[in-house]
Amino acid sequence: MKIAEATVARLVMYHRLLCRLNDEGQRVVSSNEIGEILGVKASQVRKDLSYFGEIGKRGVGYHVGRLYDHLEEILSTPGKWKMALVGVGHLGSALLGYKAFDTAKYGIEVLFDKDPQKIGSEMYGIPCYNIEEARIVTKEHGIQIIILAVPPGVAQECIDTVLQDTGVKGILNFSPTSIIVPDNVLVYNVDISVELEKLLFYLKQTMINI
Amino acid sequence: MKIAEATVARLVMYHRLLCRLNDEGQRVVSSNEIGEILGVKASQVRKDLSYFGEIGKRGVGYHVGRLYDHLEEILSTPGKWKMALVGVGHLGSALLGYKAFDTAKYGIEVLFDKDPQKIGSEMYGIPCYNIEEARIVTKEHGIQIIILAVPPGVAQECIDTVLQDTGVKGILNFSPTSIIVPDNVLVYNVDISVELEKLLFYLKQTMINI
Repeated sequence: MKIAEATVARLVMYHRLLCRLNDEGQRVVSSNEIGEILGVKASQVRKDLSYFGEIGKRGVGYHVGRLYDHLEEILSTPGKWKMALVGVGHLGSALLGYKAFDTAKYGIEVLFDKDPQKIGSEMYGIPCYNIEEARIVTKEHGIQIIILAVPPGVAQECIDTVLQDTGVKGILNFSPTSIIVPDNVLVYNVDISVELEKLLFYLKQTMINI
Repeated sequence: MKIAEATVARLVMYHRLLCRLNDEGQRVVSSNEIGEILGVKASQVRKDLSYFGEIGKRGVGYHVGRLYDHLEEILSTPGKWKMALVGVGHLGSALLGYKAFDTAKYGIEVLFDKDPQKIGSEMYGIPCYNIEEARIVTKEHGIQIIILAVPPGVAQECIDTVLQDTGVKGILNFSPTSIIVPDNVLVYNVDISVELEKLLFYLKQTMINI
């Protein structure tokens, strides 16, 4: 069962919306309403949800609490994922401050940098270690996921170090470069300038077509 | 001619790589070499490039300079895109400091925030205006693209303001929420926690299958 990335992304959005509706005390929601709020076709919403066994009642919709619980279960994790942030420069600091990486499902346990001023200190209560010690610290702390936010020139080197003989299983790569990893490690790239280039590419096409 | 998003993302990566190889003085490159460095199948590289009329020479490869020029042209813009950053909090500041948004093709011209300490000041030489004046300033400066980095609760409101009677054509949305825009405005979402959730979803699947 290989589920498309776009489907998973929509599940995350449905889950987030259902969480809000549940908090607001709404009891039922239609696929039209979900689609309207999220900018997704109602037919797509029904297709996605029915794939996971959720069939709305015609003319009524889905039961908010039940659908929320189901999505919560689909997106649940076996435990709390332990993450390390590698690179605490401009972007890394922002990711830390942004608090997007601190939930019941996952949290950043350790930081790595090469700046002597940062090494040995704490940021948001999280200790920062020398990147040279990354392999040992990663292993000791049982880190499973790496958030990579280093300059492109040192990205591969950093990754080679933390993957060596450790339990790292996944990488969220914010460095604007490709990294090579063994087959048993998953990598997701969040390349901000690629996203912008995509937007510009389609904007140009739209303008040419006008 | 609707080109898939993933293809555009790969074109951006090919372009970036060719730029580097060109700088390093490399004359020819094979699809295998490109694929190896970028973690893409060589057959995919050939397919992508042949779609744009680039056929490598069997046993030799592509001419680096020529391929670079071609990709440069495909990804070129009609002029320099004028962008506004809406929200200069943790994430917005990081995006500014990161310098990813300052190239010959696009640049951030104005900032918007509601913090009185920021309004009237400059950050990295870019003036910050009151979000209340966003519509007028956006129009005056001829802003075409919005980088949105505000808290989810105010994202829609901010976007409604800057789209009203202005020339905004595209939005790069970093706010962790969906926004609703007219059909003639393009939106790309860079939702950091969605990317992480996707990674976790597939990691969990991998672990269940083992």
